[in-house]
Amino acid sequence: MTSLALIEAAAERLKGHARRTPLLSSPFLDEIAGRRVLVKAECLQHTGSFKFRGGWSAVSAVPAEVRARGVLAYSSGNHAQGVAYAAQQHGVPAVIIMPADAPRLKIANTRALGAEVVLYERGRDSREAIGERLADERGLTLIRPYDEPQVIAGQGSCGLEIAEQAAAEGVSEADVLICCGGGGLTSGVALALEARAPGLRARPVEPEGFDDTARSLAAGAIRANAGAEEGLCDAILTPQPGELTFPIMARLCGPGLAVSDGEALHAMALAFLRLKIVLEPGGAVALAAALFHPGAVAGDSVIVVATGGNADPKTFMRALAEFPP
Amino acid sequence: MTSLALIEAAAERLKGHARRTPLLSSPFLDEIAGRRVLVKAECLQHTGSFKFRGGWSAVSAVPAEVRARGVLAYSSGNHAQGVAYAAQQHGVPAVIIMPADAPRLKIANTRALGAEVVLYERGRDSREAIGERLADERGLTLIRPYDEPQVIAGQGSCGLEIAEQAAAEGVSEADVLICCGGGGLTSGVALALEARAPGLRARPVEPEGFDDTARSLAAGAIRANAGAEEGLCDAILTPQPGELTFPIMARLCGPGLAVSDGEALHAMALAFLRLKIVLEPGGAVALAAALFHPGAVAGDSVIVVATGGNADPKTFMRALAEFPP
Repeated sequence: MTSLALIEAAAERLKGHARRTPLLSSPFLDEIAGRRVLVKAECLQHTGSFKFRGGWSAVSAVPAEVRARGVLAYSSGNHAQGVAYAAQQHGVPAVIIMPADAPRLKIANTRALGAEVVLYERGRDSREAIGERLADERGLTLIRPYDEPQVIAGQGSCGLEIAEQAAAEGVSEADVLICCGGGGLTSGVALALEARAPGLRARPVEPEGFDDTARSLAAGAIRANAGAEEGLCDAILTPQPGELTFPIMARLCGPGLAVSDGEALHAMALAFLRLKIVLEPGGAVALAAALFHPGAVAGDSVIVVATGGNADPKTFMRALAEFPP
Repeated sequence: MTSLALIEAAAERLKGHARRTPLLSSPFLDEIAGRRVLVKAECLQHTGSFKFRGGWSAVSAVPAEVRARGVLAYSSGNHAQGVAYAAQQHGVPAVIIMPADAPRLKIANTRALGAEVVLYERGRDSREAIGERLADERGLTLIRPYDEPQVIAGQGSCGLEIAEQAAAEGVSEADVLICCGGGGLTSGVALALEARAPGLRARPVEPEGFDDTARSLAAGAIRANAGAEEGLCDAILTPQPGELTFPIMARLCGPGLAVSDGEALHAMALAFLRLKIVLEPGGAVALAAALFHPGAVAGDSVIVVATGGNADPKTFMRALAEFPP
């Protein structure tokens, strides 16, 4: 089980390797939201998303002689790049299982970071089954994307930073909106905040139609999404919350929020214009909730985790064209 | 005259107001440049450029009873926004004189930050004459964009951070490439590095055809640009180096570099893709020099100051469309 001690240990291992990402703001965004908006820019993390934290945490926690045989991950892209880069920095091989329809750029980047990429067909193949077979055959250590205590602990290091940075800004009571897929980041941050900033409340944000976490929190039990795993916000389309992450979120998180694809694109355009950062759709849903659902948020300030920036240029151009200044 | 003491005093006044911007990197950029590339992301500074540092430094240095009457600046956009926001934060009026052909967005932002904007025609009107008249009439304090010791001192605070951040990365000998207009940032950073990181050498980077600083450094005396002040890199198109900035640059800086507009756009696309930051053309020329003129740079590592991110969406889309991954 992930605890504060595990998060602190992960943060210690991440020192000098992960970036302490800045907390950004703009008076123009404050005006739209009707309150102060503080944006934790995890898109500026190595490999362009918070996933490097969990990847490094998990890879560095594997005993050296086991790690030398290599690690394995399945991911639509951001966890893939995070684990690939962490493995490369540790000098060990990485095999990454990716859906064949993942953004081309994420596949190319994962290969360029030294990993062997194995593609599978969503809906037809089980990535978990492929992963377990390869792990057995080659002696690889599987690094699960979120249902893995050391991954949750690594993502939790982001929460430790938020607690410190919010205090430096004089913010002790606020909702912390977090783009949520399987819940690794949301649960890790929630655990860190529970200990270090109990007035800050983690809340997952998802795309409409893929709000499995919000519905699970409302129901008090895990609920799955009805449909396929394809959509604009590819980075955070998971079938349901994790077995490890859900109990943490159920205990600590406020209600979930959901935004439309159009709102995610609009938030990308505003992050470009006002913060000078690049967000991908799945990394922009929390900012979209802060800007366009102000009535669903509590307090004078809101903290947003902008989780990833691995946007396809075409999608980014679409956001800028559809939402001019 | 700007000295280290003046820079340190400015840095002290900027504490809690300016952002300490991160030093970013990507293995993909290192590969293109053939050496380690460390990017000081000043586009993430308040108002989207380093200009907020000099604006705040100068506004905060004016005695309170004089400052209360207001401040005045002339600028194509980034200095305008920096001074406007600094004045707004100090609760004093700001009048900003901008060329009528400045990017619409920069004019709109300057107004939205509470400033009164006065437009003039480049080539016909003298912005300096307009500025001096208004300053006399209303008792405003003129904040010059670069030929002003407190502005140079404020920009120098960026150099203090570079010295610390480079040391933390183990870099003690490197060229520091800086997008250069009138030379306020380049001279301020050069002074800070002289004292705090003597192995780091500031070098100005300009657009081809507007390389007045490079030619002035080569000649050992101020040389002006031949042509108009219009071009893609609007943020750094100044007629010639400043009377205060040039002697500092002549004493401390390495040779200047010049890049094409196409290289600036390409660097914008790569900063989007690999660093997840938004650069405007004039804020991307230093990165362009590091990536596309590696033979003109010395050492195993190069530091780049990415000075501004106030890009028009259309220009940004052009960069992404012309330079796909």
